[in-house]
Formats: sequence, C-alpha cells, structure tokens
Amino acid sequence: MTRELRIGVVGATGAVGREILKILEQREFPATTVKALASSRSAGQELPFKGGHLVVEELDENSFNDLDLALFSAGGSTSEKFAPIAARSGCVVVDNSSAWRMDPEVPLVVPEVNPDDLSRHRGIIANPNCSTIQMVVVLKPLHDAGKIKRVVVSTYQAVSGTGQKAIKELESQVRQMFNMQEPEPEVYPHRIAFNCLPHIDVFLDNDYTKEEMKMVLETQKIMGDETIRLTATTVRVPVFYGHSESVNVETEKKITSAEARVILSQAPGVQVLDNPREKIYPMPIHAAGEDLTFVGRIREDESIPNGLNLWIVADNLRKGAALNAVQIAEVLLDRDLIRVDDAL
Amino acid sequence: MTRELRIGVVGATGAVGREILKILEQREFPATTVKALASSRSAGQELPFKGGHLVVEELDENSFNDLDLALFSAGGSTSEKFAPIAARSGCVVVDNSSAWRMDPEVPLVVPEVNPDDLSRHRGIIANPNCSTIQMVVVLKPLHDAGKIKRVVVSTYQAVSGTGQKAIKELESQVRQMFNMQEPEPEVYPHRIAFNCLPHIDVFLDNDYTKEEMKMVLETQKIMGDETIRLTATTVRVPVFYGHSESVNVETEKKITSAEARVILSQAPGVQVLDNPREKIYPMPIHAAGEDLTFVGRIREDESIPNGLNLWIVADNLRKGAALNAVQIAEVLLDRDLIRVDDAL
Repeated sequence: MTRELRIGVVGATGAVGREILKILEQREFPATTVKALASSRSAGQELPFKGGHLVVEELDENSFNDLDLALFSAGGSTSEKFAPIAARSGCVVVDNSSAWRMDPEVPLVVPEVNPDDLSRHRGIIANPNCSTIQMVVVLKPLHDAGKIKRVVVSTYQAVSGTGQKAIKELESQVRQMFNMQEPEPEVYPHRIAFNCLPHIDVFLDNDYTKEEMKMVLETQKIMGDETIRLTATTVRVPVFYGHSESVNVETEKKITSAEARVILSQAPGVQVLDNPREKIYPMPIHAAGEDLTFVGRIREDESIPNGLNLWIVADNLRKGAALNAVQIAEVLLDRDLIRVDDAL
Repeated sequence: MTRELRIGVVGATGAVGREILKILEQREFPATTVKALASSRSAGQELPFKGGHLVVEELDENSFNDLDLALFSAGGSTSEKFAPIAARSGCVVVDNSSAWRMDPEVPLVVPEVNPDDLSRHRGIIANPNCSTIQMVVVLKPLHDAGKIKRVVVSTYQAVSGTGQKAIKELESQVRQMFNMQEPEPEVYPHRIAFNCLPHIDVFLDNDYTKEEMKMVLETQKIMGDETIRLTATTVRVPVFYGHSESVNVETEKKITSAEARVILSQAPGVQVLDNPREKIYPMPIHAAGEDLTFVGRIREDESIPNGLNLWIVADNLRKGAALNAVQIAEVLLDRDLIRVDDAL
C-alpha cells in the first residue's frame, strides 16, 4: 500500500515560491505530485525541479480539486480568495501571507515553538512573518527558562523579503550609481542602495508600521502568552539575503549570558555563533542559504537587573518563509493531520 | 586692533580632517592662519581650501609653537602623544579621538548639550564619539522634560566612520561582486558589501564592543547624569555616509509622542522629520552633507507606561565629528576660552 500526497505551490515563480521548490527537493519531501501554480501572467513558465522542470499552471477555483496540501506564497489577496476554496475542497493550506495569521481559528505556527497548535487546524495554517519566526525560535527557550517580560527589537531586513523585484531594484540602483546615474526608486519609496529605510509594510494609525505590529502580535500568539510585552522598529537595509535583529530581552528570572549560551545551544533550530574574540558572530552573508537561526553577541544588559542583548540572523526566505512552511507540512504529515487517501 | 587666530588641523588628509577644512570654510571660521598637519607620509600633499590650497606639513613637537587652537583627528596614539605637547605650548586642543574622553580633567562636549563644561578646560577638550553625539542632542531636551531612566539603542553605522580606507573598501567590494569576484576583506574582519557587521571597534572583557561602551559612558558624562542607564548594540551597515539609530527611551515622567514632537522641534541642532503618511522620516542619504541631527518615527512605546521610540540620523563626519569639533571651537572663541594674543 502506498500513499499518494499531491501538493501545490501557489506563487511558485516568486522569491519564496522558488525557495519552497528548492527545499521540497532538498528535504526529499514525500510528495507524489508537485504542481506549480501562479497567476496567468506566469503560466507556462518552466521552473527547475528534481533535475527536470515543472510547467507553471494558472491558479483557478479548480486548482485544488486533486491536491492534498497547498503551500501559498502569493500575497494577501490571493490567499484571502483561494485559501478557503482550497480548504473547502479538502486541501490543507499553509499560507505565507499575513491574511490569516491573526484569525483566532487559524493556528500560527513555528514548528520549534508551538507545533501542538497544528492539531486544531481547520484547513488553513498560517506561516508567521519572517522577522517574527527567527526571533521566536530564540526567545522560546529563554521564555521557558526565565519568563520573558519585555522585548525591544530593531531589525535589519534584507530586500529579498520584499520579493524578486526588490532584489533587482537594489542591484540596478547600485549599478546606476556606479555609472554616475541617480537611480529612480520604484519598489521602495526611496533609494535603498547605500541607505536605510525605517519603513517596512504600511503605516498604521498608531504610527507603527504593519511589520512592527506583526512582530508584537504574532509573537504573543505563537508563544501563547499575551503578557509578553514587545516593541519593534523595523528597518530595510541594503542586504540581499538574511534578516538581522538586535533584540533586548527582559526576563522575570535572571538568566546569565553563560546560561543563555547553554540554553540556546540546546534549542532546536538554533545555532549559537558567539566568540567575539575570534570575530565570530552571526551575519547575513553567512546565514544566507542556511536552515538554522543564528544567535550571537549574547551579553547581559547591565542597565536592568534581568536583561540580555542578542543578535539574531537567519535566511529570511528559508527559515523566515519557505523552510518554515515546509516544516509545518512535515509536522502535519508526521502527525496525520492531512487527510491523505490511501491508494490501492 | 585685529586679533590673530592661528589654527591647525591635525590629521588633515583623513576623512574627518578634510571635512573639518570644508566646515571651517563654509562657516567662515575667523582663523587668520590655517595649517594642515599630518604624518610624514602625507606631508607635501595639497588640500583644497578657500579657492586655493594648503600644503600639508609634517606633524612634530614644534608644530604647535605658533598655534592658538588645534583640531585633532588623527587617531588615539597621535592624540595621546601630541595633545599634551600642544596644550603645554598654549595651544588649545579639540580632540576627536577617544584618548581623552573619559579623563575626568577633560571636558567632553556637545555644544547643544553641555557648553558650560568648556569653562573648566585645561588645554584639552574631547569631541565625543559620532554615534553618541547625534543621540545626545536628541536625548537632552527629552531628559530635561521627563528625566530619562533608561535607553536601549541599536545603531546602523556608515563605513565613513572608519575612515577613507573603509569607504574605498565598500566601493571596491561591491564592484568586485558585480564582476563575479569574491572580495577579500581588508579594513573589516568580514565583507561589508551587502552585509551587516555587529562589531565596531574592539571587543572588551564584558563582550560589549568599545563602541557600545562609549555610547553608555560618554552619554552619562555629557548629560552630567550617571543615573541614566543605557545599553547599546552597534552595527556597521553598507552605507557610505550617515549613521542611523533606533533609540528606545524610558522616562520618569510621561512624554506623549505629540509632546516629544513639540519638544524636539524646538531643540537646537535638531530637525523633526516625522510624517509617515507622506513617507517622510530621516534617512542616511538625506542626512549626508547636512549639519542637523534628524529625528522621526516618534512613537509611544506601548510595552511600558513611559516609553518612546525614536529614529535618529545624522552625518557622522559632520555633526558626528568635524562639525561638532568646529562648533566647540566657536564656543571657545565666543566665551573667550582660548588665549589669543591681541596683535597690533
């Protein structure tokens, strides 16, 4: 008896979609069929997969009829429209947009942190925001050890978080400047080359950006603890791949930096890179292409009794998006949370 | 009766030295003589000044005999050796290195914050660290209004803070990468192009960098208040000019974001750029070449009762170094704190 597992990747031609295909292949995800789906604009395009290629099909209402699982990474409006259609047809959705994350019916999951939340899924599971994922895999073991009271985070986010167009924009702006031309910003409101933009996603009524509020609200939901207070400043920097975060943590119970190093070196999905004397600390250029979340610059914050400073870096397209989605799918399979028909 | 004022710029060929010459010219600093001094390696070089040029002279023990004021920007060891020689010969020193900053006999001054400390100078005055200067011009008026208890700061610092060599390194690394070559880092321990380095200056025994501890100790000294607690994470980013800072402030007395905007819009040397809906906020590409310190993204921090988040950007070579030194010199002149001989 073999089991069929037919999966779809929605938004397969985007920066995250391509990474999902790569990861399915690398991790030998046990799909019997993989379908690449995208808008009509990209239909017919070929994407490399397992030595051959997939021909991109146009996404429509019937795309999910013969699928068991769909990994969505095609923006909020596509998810809002098509995730419920997929779920109704029995296809479980892991959605990478922000559309469903704060829906109380929808689990928001980082497998290292709250895998058990998956058991209550009703067809749609949300993949958290990139900057939140890499932070919570590090915060969770510290929270378990000392109960986190407050977090102050400032981010240094790569352009790939915005998508393919932004990767091209950074590259072409740099080229133009080196040819003595003043580049015109298109994807971002201002030039990103050799600049820092304290502006990610839209501004909300409280003058925070949506990205900043995602970090606050998603962290509380994933950690299952609304008493954790958090404030964020999110900043785009001229880096292609890899988000960095300067994270200040205040705990109820004292955690020394030596204790934090031990706790974090045992944490799933985390690697401690913290040897300042040897100039070893996490950096985006080393995190790019890696599956782990890296933490270093671990220091006791001497401005409060129970404080720690941390520097956290991960590949925003992998752990921050594609990898986490595939890991969710792996747990779903492992725990029999996808309705898979047994084939003869 | 005219007054002679003979000044020297030590380290005139460096990134900050060149900026000092530019600023002396722009601000019509009333020097009757300007002497460009540097190491033997740079002696004989010509530097543009007031339509003509200055020929760089070699720095030695006798360089200060005919000078009233010297602006030093030539690194710690040069300052340690030559600043006392200058002071003994009656030449007042404004020193941009970290050599004298924490000496209790030496005033550490940001003219908008603690100009009165200049009156107790004994020949040497220290110019603070670049990242400290731009932060304290913004913190001072908030401290006066609500008494600052604690600051958590993360920086985004430009390569020009390291000097000319680092500016060239970022440029050449980017060019090499666009030509498919892997650049070899020389000035920094790792590649800076399209990367973030959580490492500025040397590491100390407590695992903080010297840059991070400068921000803590210099802030307390300049603000004249050792009860202000502060913790810092300092990061180099691939930006040429302009340091940015994400600053979280906790005050004794509540300051609303509206009040903070009013207070800061009246603060000397500060410009509020804070209209998120119009995508207006401070950025390094706009701060470069400017004299003011820009602050925006002013938000109440909802994780504590009396908290504010701020985004502060300034030109690190100007307000962060050369301009602040010249402004100190202007106050010294204005308050008759330089011994200037009246000429016939």
